[in-house]
Amino acid sequence: MHAVVYHGDGGKSWDEVPRPVIESATDAVVRVDAVTICGTDLHILRGDVPEVSAGRILGHEAVGTVVAVGSGTTRSVGDRVLVSCISACGNCSYCKQERYGLCQGGGGWILGHTIDGTQAEFVRVPFADRSTHLIPPDVSDEEALMLADIGPTGYEVGVLNGGVEPGDTVVVVGAGPIGLSVIQSARLFSPSRIIAVDRESARLDAAQRFGAVVVVDNTHDDPSAVVRELTDGLGADVAVEAVGIPETFELCTQLIRPAGRVANVGVHGKPATLHLEQLWPRDVTITTGLVDTSSTPMLLRLLQRRLLDTGRFVTHRFALHEFAEAYDVFSRAGDTHALKVVLTR
Amino acid sequence: MHAVVYHGDGGKSWDEVPRPVIESATDAVVRVDAVTICGTDLHILRGDVPEVSAGRILGHEAVGTVVAVGSGTTRSVGDRVLVSCISACGNCSYCKQERYGLCQGGGGWILGHTIDGTQAEFVRVPFADRSTHLIPPDVSDEEALMLADIGPTGYEVGVLNGGVEPGDTVVVVGAGPIGLSVIQSARLFSPSRIIAVDRESARLDAAQRFGAVVVVDNTHDDPSAVVRELTDGLGADVAVEAVGIPETFELCTQLIRPAGRVANVGVHGKPATLHLEQLWPRDVTITTGLVDTSSTPMLLRLLQRRLLDTGRFVTHRFALHEFAEAYDVFSRAGDTHALKVVLTR
Repeated sequence: MHAVVYHGDGGKSWDEVPRPVIESATDAVVRVDAVTICGTDLHILRGDVPEVSAGRILGHEAVGTVVAVGSGTTRSVGDRVLVSCISACGNCSYCKQERYGLCQGGGGWILGHTIDGTQAEFVRVPFADRSTHLIPPDVSDEEALMLADIGPTGYEVGVLNGGVEPGDTVVVVGAGPIGLSVIQSARLFSPSRIIAVDRESARLDAAQRFGAVVVVDNTHDDPSAVVRELTDGLGADVAVEAVGIPETFELCTQLIRPAGRVANVGVHGKPATLHLEQLWPRDVTITTGLVDTSSTPMLLRLLQRRLLDTGRFVTHRFALHEFAEAYDVFSRAGDTHALKVVLTR
Repeated sequence: MHAVVYHGDGGKSWDEVPRPVIESATDAVVRVDAVTICGTDLHILRGDVPEVSAGRILGHEAVGTVVAVGSGTTRSVGDRVLVSCISACGNCSYCKQERYGLCQGGGGWILGHTIDGTQAEFVRVPFADRSTHLIPPDVSDEEALMLADIGPTGYEVGVLNGGVEPGDTVVVVGAGPIGLSVIQSARLFSPSRIIAVDRESARLDAAQRFGAVVVVDNTHDDPSAVVRELTDGLGADVAVEAVGIPETFELCTQLIRPAGRVANVGVHGKPATLHLEQLWPRDVTITTGLVDTSSTPMLLRLLQRRLLDTGRFVTHRFALHEFAEAYDVFSRAGDTHALKVVLTR
């Protein structure tokens, strides 16, 4: 089969590699029917995730069809499944609390990270019962694919960690796919207003389509001034960092009101400065998190009920063998206005 | 009357100043019967709290007797009261949520900060109904005085913000009075073990007396190694920062397990480095906070029921006019083994 193989130092190519086989009783092998590229893959290529070694097949999001199973899974050959970005042993103390992202039993974020991933014609999925989800027939491949990572990440790491409540003022810094997912799922809690901050006007347009009522282009406008003016000088209830650089994290800590919350969603490669000399008496809460995907079954139900529209994330479509072009389009999102790209067999 | 007047640049002296009078209907003037010095006063003298201007009377903790009242308070002349470090207007959105430390109506931490404080023979206390507490007859001045600041600060900003639960492993970095208060009030939630970290052996001895079961002198031992060995390599559930320097904050972020919590209690004068490149996928929660003193009535009840022993904080006693000596003893706690010093009229 073919797969996107990481070669270290930012290099990758669509290489011929051995097809995966069942290695453990709880494995499934899935034929990849639809797959996407994540901002985290770009972080890997930039060297921000140093534990990814050369030779690794990238990718942690897919929809596919089960083609082989071990003896210890209830999945069956022919099942149409969502392959979650998070695998879960189900037995460790973290899994028992549905904190699958922190699985201590060999799961967590492993696909395209510490084991071979989904940007391939076939993928081996460990702990298949808890690492895949059966897709209801009335949900399309593309809709489900958006719940492999960005759907639950925006909801859990942005909205739940941020503690968004009805009536809140929520600022989302970064209006890429993850930021847009935060905006979309924040609306489930009826905030009074969502403010989006980005440096790309096309992304701010997208933010408005997804539900931001105020957008700030911080190449020429000051987000702090805008937020303060809208909030009687106090600041936002919740700020969500959806970029992954020190400057945007530090901005978030400036945008919140006393007793406000900063939810970091971005993948960071560098430390940030935490201005404790200003923040110590302000009762702020800062959270970080890897998605657990514990919300994925609920988000699938919202898709079924048409209370969530994830198809709108998909802007570009390719065949599997066009991965080089798909990466190019996705990584030049400022020019191409790509949100999520989908590759299908 | 006489009072401790801050002169800027670290200077202060016991000066003759005008006696305070009622300025507003909700004021009380309190004769100071017992008063103490806070680590925050030392931060002020070191320049970490730049908004304190020269000429300010220091101090934000006292027990005393009401000698004058405005027309808009229910306090009466002769009432024996605890003067809380936090004043509260009672009407702003923060006060309505008992977040008195963030009062937007002229309260918050004002005594010895933005208005004259308690290190004086008399003090004017604004919003007297919500900024003082009547002291039950079976609670001594010294016991109550420890609830002016360190009691509720340790409980609210350390233990409640840290989310201490039964069975937790709690690390307290810094075993000064505030760290000891955290240790004492953490025990109200029955953690399985409390680990204290400090560089002074006398403070670690005190930590053991207050309830730490493991102590680490980080001049020669590695707290991370100790905590990991005790927690199957995972880290502590909660780490509380009770020093106020970047190094100890950064240490706390290294001591917690995935999904653990860091509660910052220290008063900081400098920014810290937040290692988001390590922390982003670890589901950590970091809190900062100024005490609200919303727990003070409950802590007074615990004192009455003898379920809390705050008298043990007091190591040195002075007369009011001996403030210079008291500051000297308190600021050289490494040599003097001072925890809290009490000055009485």
